[in-house]
Amino acid sequence: MPETIKDVVPQIAVGRLPLYLRALRRIQQQGCDVIASHELGKHLGIGSAQIRKDLSYFGGFGKQGTGYSVAILIEQLSAVLAVDQTWSVAVIGAGNIGTAISKYEGFTQRGFHICWVFDSHPDVIGTRMGDIVVQSTEVLERTLCRHKIQIVMIAVPAGEAQQIADRVIACGVCAILNYAPIHLHVPDYVKVQYIDPIVHLQSMTYYL
Amino acid sequence: MPETIKDVVPQIAVGRLPLYLRALRRIQQQGCDVIASHELGKHLGIGSAQIRKDLSYFGGFGKQGTGYSVAILIEQLSAVLAVDQTWSVAVIGAGNIGTAISKYEGFTQRGFHICWVFDSHPDVIGTRMGDIVVQSTEVLERTLCRHKIQIVMIAVPAGEAQQIADRVIACGVCAILNYAPIHLHVPDYVKVQYIDPIVHLQSMTYYL
Repeated sequence: MPETIKDVVPQIAVGRLPLYLRALRRIQQQGCDVIASHELGKHLGIGSAQIRKDLSYFGGFGKQGTGYSVAILIEQLSAVLAVDQTWSVAVIGAGNIGTAISKYEGFTQRGFHICWVFDSHPDVIGTRMGDIVVQSTEVLERTLCRHKIQIVMIAVPAGEAQQIADRVIACGVCAILNYAPIHLHVPDYVKVQYIDPIVHLQSMTYYL
Repeated sequence: MPETIKDVVPQIAVGRLPLYLRALRRIQQQGCDVIASHELGKHLGIGSAQIRKDLSYFGGFGKQGTGYSVAILIEQLSAVLAVDQTWSVAVIGAGNIGTAISKYEGFTQRGFHICWVFDSHPDVIGTRMGDIVVQSTEVLERTLCRHKIQIVMIAVPAGEAQQIADRVIACGVCAILNYAPIHLHVPDYVKVQYIDPIVHLQSMTYYL
């Protein structure tokens, strides 16, 4: 798919595709082969018109009235999202959150292989996180460049996150999952997604 | 603030308030007392008009041209978000993710005190997570009702999450932070926020 078509699809629609894929995998596990968009919608709490529209950006994967083949839709969505391959990922920060990330098996199971963990604290460098030995951030650039890493997860304190982002971007990283509770300033071509559970909690306490 | 006003504010605007609060706390730590909306916007990557509009739902907290008092804005946003108090929270699921959540100090530091952890596996029940002893999900209802818990975090496998959600909602829980990789079906008055890092990663690999 040429770059131009990719950019035409609204980011909010792209953000829903992983939810579709996740639900479809679950539906497949339950033994279902074909699913109508309104049934898929029920699983997701999303309207069927929205689902059909989102999928139509990529040419549409089903015919009106017959439903989608679950297996084919999984295959095609996986290809669209480029998750029909394994991605090597580096984690920066081996504190509380970085440790949890590094030990979480769900990443590997869903195609994201954490291959490197970096930290700047002498006490942590050289310790093991499962199979991985924590490396010094002094060798961050060398490792990222050598292995052409495109995706990193940042789990350093807020005050260090921007500097780490700048460093990894200079090495060619273009996708950052940021667990540090701070907004990152990055060039337009770099994608950043944020995970801060407190922000989610606070947007609910508003209603309590 | 009466219920009706609360519901008038778009959910997407409510979702940005915690980001404003987080940035303002950081700005305050850096010794800044007054901030203009365009400066706050720079910290957040959000336009100043958007910020002013979001804050105007609550009567506006600053005067044109003079900037916001950082301390007052923090105080008022904290009150709006009801985070000027401590919330007692229960975690359900003491596996990989539940353990990480229970040990993460950031929750307590920002007003969410994890008081209970539940699991259904005999091997885990009775073990300690820091100061907390993991309880059996058999006493889930009793504990939630007795302590009038409103917020839970669900960290059980996808196949168990809906049933757990139904049970906690029956006990009066109305805010769920869901780490299980599945959409939850809940009544309208219950708020659910989702955390699935794979979904975030996959919405970035699309662009790689």
